[in-house]
Amino acid sequence: MDRLPGFRDFYPEPLPDAGLWSADARQHIFTKWRDTARLYGFREYDGPPLEPLELFTLKSGDEIVGQLYNFTDKGGRPLALRPEMTPTLARMVAAHERSYKKPVKWFAIPQLFRYERQQKGRLREHFQFNADIIGESDSSADAELIALLVDTLLNLGLTAEDFVIRLSSRNAWHEFFLRHNGALDAEYEFFQAIDKIERQSEEENEAKLARLGFSLSQVQDFITGGVPTSELAAILKNLQARGLDRFVRVDYQVVRGLAYYTGPVFEAFDRKGEFRAIAGGGRYDNLIRLISGGKVNLPALGFGMGDVVLLELLKTRGALKGFSGAIDTFVLVEAEDLRGPSLGLVQDLRRNGLAVDYSLTPAKPEKQFKRALEFNATYAVRLVRSGSDQTLLQLKNLRTRTETTVTTAQAIEQMKQGA
Amino acid sequence: MDRLPGFRDFYPEPLPDAGLWSADARQHIFTKWRDTARLYGFREYDGPPLEPLELFTLKSGDEIVGQLYNFTDKGGRPLALRPEMTPTLARMVAAHERSYKKPVKWFAIPQLFRYERQQKGRLREHFQFNADIIGESDSSADAELIALLVDTLLNLGLTAEDFVIRLSSRNAWHEFFLRHNGALDAEYEFFQAIDKIERQSEEENEAKLARLGFSLSQVQDFITGGVPTSELAAILKNLQARGLDRFVRVDYQVVRGLAYYTGPVFEAFDRKGEFRAIAGGGRYDNLIRLISGGKVNLPALGFGMGDVVLLELLKTRGALKGFSGAIDTFVLVEAEDLRGPSLGLVQDLRRNGLAVDYSLTPAKPEKQFKRALEFNATYAVRLVRSGSDQTLLQLKNLRTRTETTVTTAQAIEQMKQGA
Repeated sequence: MDRLPGFRDFYPEPLPDAGLWSADARQHIFTKWRDTARLYGFREYDGPPLEPLELFTLKSGDEIVGQLYNFTDKGGRPLALRPEMTPTLARMVAAHERSYKKPVKWFAIPQLFRYERQQKGRLREHFQFNADIIGESDSSADAELIALLVDTLLNLGLTAEDFVIRLSSRNAWHEFFLRHNGALDAEYEFFQAIDKIERQSEEENEAKLARLGFSLSQVQDFITGGVPTSELAAILKNLQARGLDRFVRVDYQVVRGLAYYTGPVFEAFDRKGEFRAIAGGGRYDNLIRLISGGKVNLPALGFGMGDVVLLELLKTRGALKGFSGAIDTFVLVEAEDLRGPSLGLVQDLRRNGLAVDYSLTPAKPEKQFKRALEFNATYAVRLVRSGSDQTLLQLKNLRTRTETTVTTAQAIEQMKQGA
Repeated sequence: MDRLPGFRDFYPEPLPDAGLWSADARQHIFTKWRDTARLYGFREYDGPPLEPLELFTLKSGDEIVGQLYNFTDKGGRPLALRPEMTPTLARMVAAHERSYKKPVKWFAIPQLFRYERQQKGRLREHFQFNADIIGESDSSADAELIALLVDTLLNLGLTAEDFVIRLSSRNAWHEFFLRHNGALDAEYEFFQAIDKIERQSEEENEAKLARLGFSLSQVQDFITGGVPTSELAAILKNLQARGLDRFVRVDYQVVRGLAYYTGPVFEAFDRKGEFRAIAGGGRYDNLIRLISGGKVNLPALGFGMGDVVLLELLKTRGALKGFSGAIDTFVLVEAEDLRGPSLGLVQDLRRNGLAVDYSLTPAKPEKQFKRALEFNATYAVRLVRSGSDQTLLQLKNLRTRTETTVTTAQAIEQMKQGA
């Protein structure tokens, strides 16, 4: 029996098949996400992967249902597996906003699901780092969020040569749209057309824009001639004070596909343009009011960074070494009458914070030693004499090949230094 | 709009409402699970939360469907949200078993889902620590697994006064069942009756057992008079060598409700008997062969520990302190002409591994200082002079209330020591 198409199994490395995703690489990425968020004072939250279907249709309209894993439960409730985190965040903040001082800085690492027509290599789930700031309308919050995005990518081992943040503004596009007499009820359609320009042919773009009363050259002139709005200028100035402006450039080509953005928007891309966006986000000042049915009104902004494009990029840039899952120590049990005390030693070492393995059943010394090497152990240790005050160990450093005879306490001390 | 009944939101602590689950406590538990598993040389894996429905019916029969979140996707595939991890593990191991040396020691921390009739306080999802050893039939593997279970609970701050592992054997019960001429096709029903004895009335137990050809007193005699099988004796001897036997007692009352167990089984309980089982597991030597359609035949064993009972127990035993999400340093920006250099300082501190927050927008010094205290910052720092070689900071230790004027390098050194 195989897993569902579009879903991933995560095996321990080294992997049996290069096409598989590894649990070790995933955990490495999660840890960098979590650690960087904490350096920025962001706090973790999470919601359920299943939500009422309405939570998503309220925000994105009924057309989103075709892209969801949705169903009716045995109690007749319409549900969906979450396709994004922002509606859940808005719901949670709206429910308890008075309990948290503003601005709130929160992050989450949800798994997200999207039902799409099966395409080769196209996934139906991914993990996403979500970071949001709620309750601050000043552009200093946008800068803080973009700084977190930059530092997250740097902490993952990428450099200014690898990625760039393209910064844009829904407000600038909104003014452009009004200046050229766009019909307000077609504005979202217009944004979606801009969002797709880079991925579609000139003819398709021309036709789509003409229907909305625009020409492609008009739009392209705005993109290439785009002057930063005062808001974007303030963000850039803030980032410059942090020494991070070289990671960001204004690029009105970016507009973001989602309906609910209201102000600055941005996307992170690899500089070589080989991949889809690494991350994207922006302001959504009206969403919490919408989700809360008008009860709570807070400005907000956030970004999401998926694990799929990121992992590909890290691999091609050599920023991801293999994960051996190395243990610290392998305990050799060479005389079966010493198995009891050896088990006591195993526990003792683990209690002291050392990752330890051993052969569960009797095995030839060579076989045990081979297994120690397979496990990439730093040390191999065996009891040579056991007694209440006379326990002696033979300790071998498998990196330096040095061997010493020591007491348990000495062994622990040495191994903790080497671990 | 509210979340679905039976599902949890995880907020950052301090919590707005004592009934809410905290993301901080969850992360604390996950970290202890992961760290202890690694000390034991277990490697992490994961599979998709959605699996083909057949993966679960194959093992547990069609009656399980009533307890699942199952549905048919837009491509007509019958799916279910995983109610347990073992079938996924068996599927993954069967698919790539040749790539991993045996015994395999793997762990996972999946979220699991079960559709049950709505009851007050009853959850429809939980997280579970799953640890399994695959490819070793010797009872030394059972002992290693139970040792991991004990150390996990100890590392969470529980003691021998708080919990006990009740160890039993499907083999012992199987022999008892045959000795008393039980009908083989009723054996699973018999195990389920034993499993429920403690939770049902004497009359119910008597009636249920009579239908299967047993009397309650017969069964109770076996439970109270139970002599450890040689297999259980070997497990106990192994645990004794590790100094862990005081956490374990043979108790034939335990039999486990699931169909697929084949040998030793065990459950962890709080000593006071206030809660349901904290964890449970055992051998399932036939499951991988079943899931792989006969292609792979490996003995296996494992346990699962949920987060719900565990968290309740940790709370009542005082083994879980609150989580303040404290930051290391709050940077005060008191003169707006120093905002630029202060932002540079913020980045500099974060780059040095310190968790830093600050007021995004201009605010009165008292208000900023109050926020530093709210964030539980260890240090407050402000720029008093900025320049290429003359940068000076005023650094206040908010715990000791001492204040010093230092360079950036000195400040970083002091704060890293205190962090």
